[in-house]
Amino acid sequence: MREADIQNGEAAATIGALATPALLLDMDRLDRNLDRLSSRMAARGVVLRPHMKTAKSIDVARRAHRSGPGPITVSTLAEAEHFAGHGFRDITYAVGLAPHTAERAMRLRKAGIDIKVLLDSPEQAAMLGAAGRIAGVTPSTFVEIDCDGHRGGLTATDLKLVVVAAALAEADVKLAGILTHAGESYSLCAPEALVAAAENERAVAVAAATTLRAAGHECPIVSVGSTPTAYFAEDLTGVTEMRAGVYMFFDLVMHGVGVCTTDDIAISVLATVIGKKPEKGWILVDAGWMALSRDRGSAAQRVDQAYGLVCDLAGKIYPDLIVSQASQEHGILAIRSGSAQALPDLSIGAKVRVLPNHACATASQHELYNVVSGGSSAIGAQWPRMRGW
Amino acid sequence: MREADIQNGEAAATIGALATPALLLDMDRLDRNLDRLSSRMAARGVVLRPHMKTAKSIDVARRAHRSGPGPITVSTLAEAEHFAGHGFRDITYAVGLAPHTAERAMRLRKAGIDIKVLLDSPEQAAMLGAAGRIAGVTPSTFVEIDCDGHRGGLTATDLKLVVVAAALAEADVKLAGILTHAGESYSLCAPEALVAAAENERAVAVAAATTLRAAGHECPIVSVGSTPTAYFAEDLTGVTEMRAGVYMFFDLVMHGVGVCTTDDIAISVLATVIGKKPEKGWILVDAGWMALSRDRGSAAQRVDQAYGLVCDLAGKIYPDLIVSQASQEHGILAIRSGSAQALPDLSIGAKVRVLPNHACATASQHELYNVVSGGSSAIGAQWPRMRGW
Repeated sequence: MREADIQNGEAAATIGALATPALLLDMDRLDRNLDRLSSRMAARGVVLRPHMKTAKSIDVARRAHRSGPGPITVSTLAEAEHFAGHGFRDITYAVGLAPHTAERAMRLRKAGIDIKVLLDSPEQAAMLGAAGRIAGVTPSTFVEIDCDGHRGGLTATDLKLVVVAAALAEADVKLAGILTHAGESYSLCAPEALVAAAENERAVAVAAATTLRAAGHECPIVSVGSTPTAYFAEDLTGVTEMRAGVYMFFDLVMHGVGVCTTDDIAISVLATVIGKKPEKGWILVDAGWMALSRDRGSAAQRVDQAYGLVCDLAGKIYPDLIVSQASQEHGILAIRSGSAQALPDLSIGAKVRVLPNHACATASQHELYNVVSGGSSAIGAQWPRMRGW
Repeated sequence: MREADIQNGEAAATIGALATPALLLDMDRLDRNLDRLSSRMAARGVVLRPHMKTAKSIDVARRAHRSGPGPITVSTLAEAEHFAGHGFRDITYAVGLAPHTAERAMRLRKAGIDIKVLLDSPEQAAMLGAAGRIAGVTPSTFVEIDCDGHRGGLTATDLKLVVVAAALAEADVKLAGILTHAGESYSLCAPEALVAAAENERAVAVAAATTLRAAGHECPIVSVGSTPTAYFAEDLTGVTEMRAGVYMFFDLVMHGVGVCTTDDIAISVLATVIGKKPEKGWILVDAGWMALSRDRGSAAQRVDQAYGLVCDLAGKIYPDLIVSQASQEHGILAIRSGSAQALPDLSIGAKVRVLPNHACATASQHELYNVVSGGSSAIGAQWPRMRGW
């Protein structure tokens, strides 16, 4: 209720009465998205460890784990502390370790949270061992594996893999397993390329685990994940857990990749028409990049959605109407270049909903989710988001 | 103190001890930037109405108006309410009006705040008049003028200008004046083009005011502004006030435009090294787009700074070291393509500072400013930012 309370003295009862811009979450779509990946992983005997970096919401985490707190992934220690404070105890912090994060994570471990961290060097292994000794706990960590040159991690054939594992043993740190992320899959759209990316992620992960086991190390968890590979994987043999985040909400980039329809996209930004420039084919709305984010992830895809695809208040897409430009608090709606569609006739004060390029980025611009369901315009709940580091 | 309190139990005393990523504000540079534009406008007899959308901080607003609350511009009504709550009473809300914002602005007016709004249609004039009647106040508004096709507003020769002014009179709304914004100046870098953009902004604004006055309307305020034109204007005859925001902090885009040096950039993002990939020429840090924003404003400039230019902890630039890629919580530092510079030798845990592309966007990703001054690493203060709509 916080944002609406501050703004209006009382919470808006329907989306039509909401001060804009505002973030909407369609709970039916959320639940459908959650169930879809959950069923897929259950059928394969693979643990699903949802990445909370997208939603950053305890309410969403609870819907992802309806039978009680289960395993989660986080991108910041602030998230780890937040979810731990709400009963989640099995947490993977999937960002490379530094001295201050090692200390902070070990404080959580001391408090009884099974937090597992991530590293890829003997230097970090020693640092984590020291933080564990200071806190009086045995740390647990993944070794990061690089499956596609996307970011950090060791390749499966890098001899350093065994060196790092030995450094962990030396530093009295438990090796939780190996972790990899097929980040390059976001740039694909051909099904065969996505299937290959998923199989590569699996094969590299299993190869790394095999190397460690051959060297005498236990490697209980083989963790892979990205929303595209979670859906395009045809075989997950040897994989024990899947991490994904954006699958909960989906977005236009994921639509461009081919893992969802626009009807699966669970979040949208509610905006109000504040001006018109018919001579330019423009409608101005009060959602600029502050409400939509600067993310232009679809720019590199087959269909560039500019700053988002525009729907009416009920969520029906206006064909080819996009947020063509964005400044801080202004969005310019226009018909996509080359389209024969007509600009809809919207008056000052009319409301629209914008489907975002990138759910993680757009949601992060907002304090809370205005939750709707069943096609109703009533706001059923307001779910706060956490932020910061 | 909020963020640091939550994270560490106590506020960090020096930037070296701060949990990262974190936003730093160099107060000496801030003050120098504030004084520079303030003196320039005072010398020309033009009122400076700082745009608070960049800083969103009461502490920064107070430094911009050291002798007490003065005129400000805001981009959201949440800002208007925030600054009004801290004693600022002369506020321009420079975003086109809709019914719900008209009502909300008139509640502020009823509370004694001289809030001026913005519109460009008879429809909005009637709407504002109605909101004023309901609140029992006389609204005051600018008519928005379009000087460069950037966004909303009427052209100076549009006959609708007089129609809107007549509609205001009809609706018992006070015409505060005309307001224009040379938003296209951000895409320029040649001094002669910038001088021309500033002169065009002035000339269009004055022409619009002249048209209104000739039709018998008082038009007391002639308000122009953007940071580039504020600096490149050679003549401000007929202009009564200047609005600018990013001049307080500056950023790499403004450096590319040519209105500041990198030594003028007052904010930076503190980050920690969390991984290395020497074979790729990469250093990984814990500042991704969540800390830096997705803004890539320099991409269209002569020098593309990717996601930011990297400095050491003391603020000295590493030549040609940029944040070449960013994911949510990861930044990849690399030497700019084509440069012969060597990658600096930074260990895990080492700290760097990143100069941002766009101060408004980067600052908006953070809860507070960690304020430093005098070249000291001590954190002198922590200034909260406000957010939301």
